[in-house]
Amino acid sequence: MIDITLIGTSALMPIPQRALTAVLLTCGGHSILFDCGEGTQTAARKEGISLMRTDIIALTHYHGDHIFGLPGLLQTMTNTEREEPLYIIGPAGLEEAMKPILKLAYFTPYEINLLEIPAEGVRLAELIPGWAYEAKLSAFKTEHRVSSQGYVFTLSRAGKFQPEKAKALGVPINQWGVLQKGQCVEVDGKIILPEQVLGEPRKGLKFVFTGDTAMCETLTEAAEGADLLISEATYGVLEQAPHAVEHGRHMIFSQAAEVAKAAGVKELWLTHYSQMIVDPQEYLPNATAIFPNTICGRDGMSTTLKFEE
Amino acid sequence: MIDITLIGTSALMPIPQRALTAVLLTCGGHSILFDCGEGTQTAARKEGISLMRTDIIALTHYHGDHIFGLPGLLQTMTNTEREEPLYIIGPAGLEEAMKPILKLAYFTPYEINLLEIPAEGVRLAELIPGWAYEAKLSAFKTEHRVSSQGYVFTLSRAGKFQPEKAKALGVPINQWGVLQKGQCVEVDGKIILPEQVLGEPRKGLKFVFTGDTAMCETLTEAAEGADLLISEATYGVLEQAPHAVEHGRHMIFSQAAEVAKAAGVKELWLTHYSQMIVDPQEYLPNATAIFPNTICGRDGMSTTLKFEE
Repeated sequence: MIDITLIGTSALMPIPQRALTAVLLTCGGHSILFDCGEGTQTAARKEGISLMRTDIIALTHYHGDHIFGLPGLLQTMTNTEREEPLYIIGPAGLEEAMKPILKLAYFTPYEINLLEIPAEGVRLAELIPGWAYEAKLSAFKTEHRVSSQGYVFTLSRAGKFQPEKAKALGVPINQWGVLQKGQCVEVDGKIILPEQVLGEPRKGLKFVFTGDTAMCETLTEAAEGADLLISEATYGVLEQAPHAVEHGRHMIFSQAAEVAKAAGVKELWLTHYSQMIVDPQEYLPNATAIFPNTICGRDGMSTTLKFEE
Repeated sequence: MIDITLIGTSALMPIPQRALTAVLLTCGGHSILFDCGEGTQTAARKEGISLMRTDIIALTHYHGDHIFGLPGLLQTMTNTEREEPLYIIGPAGLEEAMKPILKLAYFTPYEINLLEIPAEGVRLAELIPGWAYEAKLSAFKTEHRVSSQGYVFTLSRAGKFQPEKAKALGVPINQWGVLQKGQCVEVDGKIILPEQVLGEPRKGLKFVFTGDTAMCETLTEAAEGADLLISEATYGVLEQAPHAVEHGRHMIFSQAAEVAKAAGVKELWLTHYSQMIVDPQEYLPNATAIFPNTICGRDGMSTTLKFEE
């Protein structure tokens, strides 16, 4: 089960009716915050969400509208006496980008780890104790003229546990849980593999966040079969900013829909609206004509992704 | 005439119902923004106020809740194609404090001037063309355990112009305005002083903003006779944070009122409320018992200070 909340939906500047784009993912009591523009902490509080227990902040790139909320958030974590370490993940250049932010945040009594994750992703339980063993975060390169990446979060689901097989192999009951989680156990000097006691692997969950990007092959590949794709859709139509769209910085509504269609995602949420867009719903038909299950993201919108039964 | 708007009234952390403390002063089409915490630009927009024409940002100290809105504001000024120079004024340590902020703001096509103003203050017309000749900004030391200062803005008012005296001295009509503004003119090789053609100087206007401070003598002196004092009043009662109050970091409601009374100000607005204060009105009697003309500041509150007739 994954909870997703779209904290803000604005691009470039925070405006009273739309906070800057940020997304919170929660799974098993642990959280990842994707991007953190100025005002993210207030926007989260407005929705009754605390960011204080966030383990990981995953940045898509280092433009101000995606990172200027960090000094305040890090300082609020200090003020609330956080002790748990925090991971900040981002594309190439993370250390340099974080220098002035950490300087402003000044004193943080909790540990801050900066991490550029490898292409194949990281199993979060190996990074932070308590995360589900099945949770994995990976990044994919996006097209935004600066070092940038989108993120894929997956929660895999093992096959159904078959107690009769475990009994036959002589696995004591207190070891069943380990096998259920996909790890090996040793019984009388013999290694028992999870696949020996589990049925066929079942469909897991997949969430994808684009960050800022133009349409690109890496995005379509990364989004393949996602349960939810939250995509930037900075402009309603090409006429609003032909330069920004054609020169590979941003997408329009219909392009986000094309990506969702090509990737075969289940649901598409649009976000990161330019100030030129007063009411995103006005342009929604441009997207639904291509990918019907498109929803205009709005601040505070949330959903729960659940395993299929 | 001076317009004052209290943009936010929160201390330490921005919360949905209160933006961080910031004050905008406008006089003759020019503006000074006092402090700029995270979310100041959004809070201003919420009130329909543009900060884009701000000439001067005057910082009281370099704690995050007073400066973390700067990177975003400076970048928004870039995005709105500002060309006019900007002055940023603050207490000792300004250059060092601004380094990470300017690094984050990245590219600003307009000029940014950092200025630690002298104790006697600056006549703003000498800094920025277009400011009223009579406008002056000065700073006074406050008690906050870090380098900190409050600000006094005055708009002086010359005596009434007496045309019969000007005529008798042979001053041509096109030179009257210069004398009215308090500057000298030369007529037939003779210097005519403003006092030769003006009546008794009249009462001007005075506005004082404390920033963060404990009660202190410098504040009471600086606030003397102010038309409006906006004072920090972080806690309602001593019990809320005895350490912070007794160790010279902040004031409680009644202390702000004591300052206002001792300084003989006309009106006192309270601001910079701790999150412990849900409804500031609850503690207002603690202040009005000492200084009746106290008002609990709230986000977006504004007033116009006018010369007495």
